[in-house]
Amino acid sequence: MSIPFVKGHGTENDFVLLPDPDDALDLTPARVRALCDRRAGIGADGVLRVVRDETQQPDGTWFMDYRNADGSIAEMCGNGVRVFARYLLDQGLVERREFPVGTRAGVRDVRVDERGEVTVDMGPARVTGESAATLDGRRFPGVAVDVGNPHLVCVTDRIHDLDLSVPPVHDRVVFPAGVNVEFVVVEAPDRIRMRVHERGVGETRSCGTGTVAAVAGVLHRAGHKTGTADVDIPGGRVRVVVDEDTCTLTGPAVFVARGELDRGWWDSVGG
Amino acid sequence: MSIPFVKGHGTENDFVLLPDPDDALDLTPARVRALCDRRAGIGADGVLRVVRDETQQPDGTWFMDYRNADGSIAEMCGNGVRVFARYLLDQGLVERREFPVGTRAGVRDVRVDERGEVTVDMGPARVTGESAATLDGRRFPGVAVDVGNPHLVCVTDRIHDLDLSVPPVHDRVVFPAGVNVEFVVVEAPDRIRMRVHERGVGETRSCGTGTVAAVAGVLHRAGHKTGTADVDIPGGRVRVVVDEDTCTLTGPAVFVARGELDRGWWDSVGG
Repeated sequence: MSIPFVKGHGTENDFVLLPDPDDALDLTPARVRALCDRRAGIGADGVLRVVRDETQQPDGTWFMDYRNADGSIAEMCGNGVRVFARYLLDQGLVERREFPVGTRAGVRDVRVDERGEVTVDMGPARVTGESAATLDGRRFPGVAVDVGNPHLVCVTDRIHDLDLSVPPVHDRVVFPAGVNVEFVVVEAPDRIRMRVHERGVGETRSCGTGTVAAVAGVLHRAGHKTGTADVDIPGGRVRVVVDEDTCTLTGPAVFVARGELDRGWWDSVGG
Repeated sequence: MSIPFVKGHGTENDFVLLPDPDDALDLTPARVRALCDRRAGIGADGVLRVVRDETQQPDGTWFMDYRNADGSIAEMCGNGVRVFARYLLDQGLVERREFPVGTRAGVRDVRVDERGEVTVDMGPARVTGESAATLDGRRFPGVAVDVGNPHLVCVTDRIHDLDLSVPPVHDRVVFPAGVNVEFVVVEAPDRIRMRVHERGVGETRSCGTGTVAAVAGVLHRAGHKTGTADVDIPGGRVRVVVDEDTCTLTGPAVFVARGELDRGWWDSVGG
């Protein structure tokens, strides 16, 4: 039995896709860790297993079984779902450019445009208050935004020389479970630039919910509840639309390679 | 035209192999960097292009066109040549278990055993004197060993808590071009444990020439010119034999996956 895989990324948030329509793959946490190991495996931020979603209607919905690189289960990933959605369309596993994708956070509606860019419904962004982060002794006031997970959006004048190799210090009363911190420069009313420190991970080249939170936070500061902006992150550019009741994230999905896992290797890392 | 690849590693020093028997691939430095990019590409420490060696006798010799992750050309890689050699045998590109491999550092004789472990002739290790490294304010006396590149082998009592995230300070008079520094614990006369800081790279999970230098240095300290030892490195275990006129390195070669590069991606990163 061969085990096919695809390696791809969304704004340099990278994934190993494992097509497994019949739910036959024994994807243990140890195997997820081995796959994501950047030297002993293929290397990725996470694994996206592609399985039929038996629980959903209508028939033909696919479920994104997303796993973190450490082997744990994750609910959703705004960058991963783009790669997942484009894979389904490219492989002919869905028939239309707009379709639902099952995730542990519920069904998400996606749309793949003619250029291959993918738009994902990210759910609502909710401004919950104000707080501040401290980095290298400097205080950054910010807007707290909830996009299913907590964010602190700090608008500042320059971000290129921030040292994000250490976590920004946050208010543990406001964010008892930690927080993702976005440092944002507003380049134009509809264009921002940002860097992000993800809780428990460190600085990343992209964070899907972080870009949504950043745009919602910047709009809030300007007195707006809705709006659209391009977001430049280290891994590329995405577009965020904030509406009253939901947000969408549009960005690229890139495939780098596809093939088969070595069966001997797969057996050796299993269990 | 499809572009096949194989991902593998030797003691977690990892490589993308590109089979290119007819020397047809336009492997620019930009494409090497893109392939080795650990998020936007496949990710590896280097690329091993597999081409026929037209300059060598006898006919049928293969040439290892090794490139560093930064796109530059490299002469040899003790871990890479194991992966390269096992690939040749597994694919039926050589007929015997012992065969020569062409490299920019000359032809190297290799042997693949029944378990798939690969032995490579690494050339002579030459003890050139003594020096010392300083790490975190502590001085580590060491033996200077040349294995085609410079090494400083520092025997010490414990290595697990050394902070190798910063380069050890070396004597710039003794090592004007920098030096690879091995921190070694002698567990038994024929078994050592080591960690290595590679010049210009940082700590790595394995360094082929470093393991050879470490064994030669430990033997020298004990008053021996020849000997054999197992070497435990973070990426696994290898065996080094030091003889009067040459050394051999034996270790595993692991294949993780194989397949084809995405043609659109390849074109987009070229030039």
